[in-house]
Amino acid sequence: MRTLVTGGAGFIGSHFVDRLLAAGHDVVAYDNFSTGQERFLDQALTHPRFQLIRGDLLDRPALAAGAQGIDLVFHFAANADVRFGLEWPERDLQQNAVATFNVLEAMRANGVTRIVFASTGSVYGEPDVFPTPEDAPFPRQTSLYGAAKLAGEALVQAYCEGYGFQGYIFRFVSILGERYSHGHVFDFYRQLRAHPDTLHVLGDGHQRKSYIYVHDCLDAIFCALERAVNRVNIFNLGTDEYCEVNDSVRWLTRELGLSPVLSYTGGARGWVGDSPFIFLDCRRIRSLGWRPALSIQDAIVRTVRYLRANEWLLDARR
Amino acid sequence: MRTLVTGGAGFIGSHFVDRLLAAGHDVVAYDNFSTGQERFLDQALTHPRFQLIRGDLLDRPALAAGAQGIDLVFHFAANADVRFGLEWPERDLQQNAVATFNVLEAMRANGVTRIVFASTGSVYGEPDVFPTPEDAPFPRQTSLYGAAKLAGEALVQAYCEGYGFQGYIFRFVSILGERYSHGHVFDFYRQLRAHPDTLHVLGDGHQRKSYIYVHDCLDAIFCALERAVNRVNIFNLGTDEYCEVNDSVRWLTRELGLSPVLSYTGGARGWVGDSPFIFLDCRRIRSLGWRPALSIQDAIVRTVRYLRANEWLLDARR
Repeated sequence: MRTLVTGGAGFIGSHFVDRLLAAGHDVVAYDNFSTGQERFLDQALTHPRFQLIRGDLLDRPALAAGAQGIDLVFHFAANADVRFGLEWPERDLQQNAVATFNVLEAMRANGVTRIVFASTGSVYGEPDVFPTPEDAPFPRQTSLYGAAKLAGEALVQAYCEGYGFQGYIFRFVSILGERYSHGHVFDFYRQLRAHPDTLHVLGDGHQRKSYIYVHDCLDAIFCALERAVNRVNIFNLGTDEYCEVNDSVRWLTRELGLSPVLSYTGGARGWVGDSPFIFLDCRRIRSLGWRPALSIQDAIVRTVRYLRANEWLLDARR
Repeated sequence: MRTLVTGGAGFIGSHFVDRLLAAGHDVVAYDNFSTGQERFLDQALTHPRFQLIRGDLLDRPALAAGAQGIDLVFHFAANADVRFGLEWPERDLQQNAVATFNVLEAMRANGVTRIVFASTGSVYGEPDVFPTPEDAPFPRQTSLYGAAKLAGEALVQAYCEGYGFQGYIFRFVSILGERYSHGHVFDFYRQLRAHPDTLHVLGDGHQRKSYIYVHDCLDAIFCALERAVNRVNIFNLGTDEYCEVNDSVRWLTRELGLSPVLSYTGGARGWVGDSPFIFLDCRRIRSLGWRPALSIQDAIVRTVRYLRANEWLLDARR
């Protein structure tokens, strides 16, 4: 099978590149290196069935060329930064909604009809039902990131109905593990590296969040691709637990052997648009036989160990 | 109050222009005349408190200038053509999603924070619950029109949360009445004008659809603006009934005194992405005290009479 991985040099995309190559598939990675890291592709770049295209998804001719002869698209390129949406509202619109449209059009121009789309639990806004199922009440968006990802989902669905595409949409909780390069564990680690005695926490620390280990996430997606057969397949993807930000802090500082003084910005939300409680109902993907291997605590510890062994990444992501 | 009406030369927008002027407000109409009609503004153009800007919503500087000093935006400009989405997928994205983003940005640049957004019952896709309430299960999109309008809704909601906007989102059924200029009654009328003896119907004629009379629609929106006080206010807007396409055909041909031979393309849907059953639960807007004055049948008859007296519109909309 010949696959295209957008965001192929990113945290999740690069793991897909490695797994797909290992499984014997041809892989084209497409990345603008706005947040992607060439070092994530060190192994892939030595592989004869791997091709790297440096390009932006807003560059339609380059994208159309990249989609030639492809059987399956993994669309992981995105602006994954939820927090700074209000400073750069257009970035979410362009990189998450318009870029997804461009991917769909590049596929249509090349007769490619199967797509995996990385959506987010943020599309539920601030739901009333926990754990939140895929068919929760029609949500209200609270972030530009969620709004733009919802737009991407909606476009994928419309292409499935209108052009006979088959879509796999995954609403992730936050993902942790090797190559993790943005988010609260990253921020905490960076702070503690600079000042081991103090740690600033956004919000009151009682925000309840869910996380999943990146390889569990990949396993779930490959499981769904193998076993889900609808035209539009939508899955929540997370663990059956959540933790408080304060739990993360405890696990992270214990792993580092530090006891910093904690200071809090206060309030139930870390920033405007931050959802104070994320906990997804993942029975649908579990019904296909998938189970996560790592708990949230294990995933956080593993992420800290990875960052410790790869401090180059902290400098690369300034 | 100084108001901006995007799509101000269109079917619904031009009615708002007239009503707002009559109520003593200043009105700036913004329209690219892709489907708008200057004749709809004949009265308004003689009014001292009316200003017309010929411009496209993709022209950001023109739009930013138009939003200066505005208190309330009625965003009605859209590609309202659901049926041809698959022929022109980019039109929906640009005119319904990106254009809405541009309106929101023009507002933000000018400190304008109140917006009325014309959404659609199409955002429910093909729902399982009838009548369909605003908090129906998370929908799946079946048309590019619905997908792009959902994107517009999501952006409005995110701006409400992130930038302190107040939003009024209306999910309409199809609207009928004076200045109606696209849709099935328009198509039927045009066919019968050319060939009074035959009428081609898309689908099997048993599609169940809902309609609302344009002045009932305006009354509902003004009612919500006066009485709904949330940051994000979402309302379905329709009558408490539906009819079959065959009912429309009967009412329309009876009004015209014609008995055409009917032919059907067959199938439950008029086209790919056509929802075979649209029936919205409108208890939320009714709870504010609004009631529609006209039944679907009355609205169709009134629309036919309008088209009969304004055949220029049939030629203008080729």
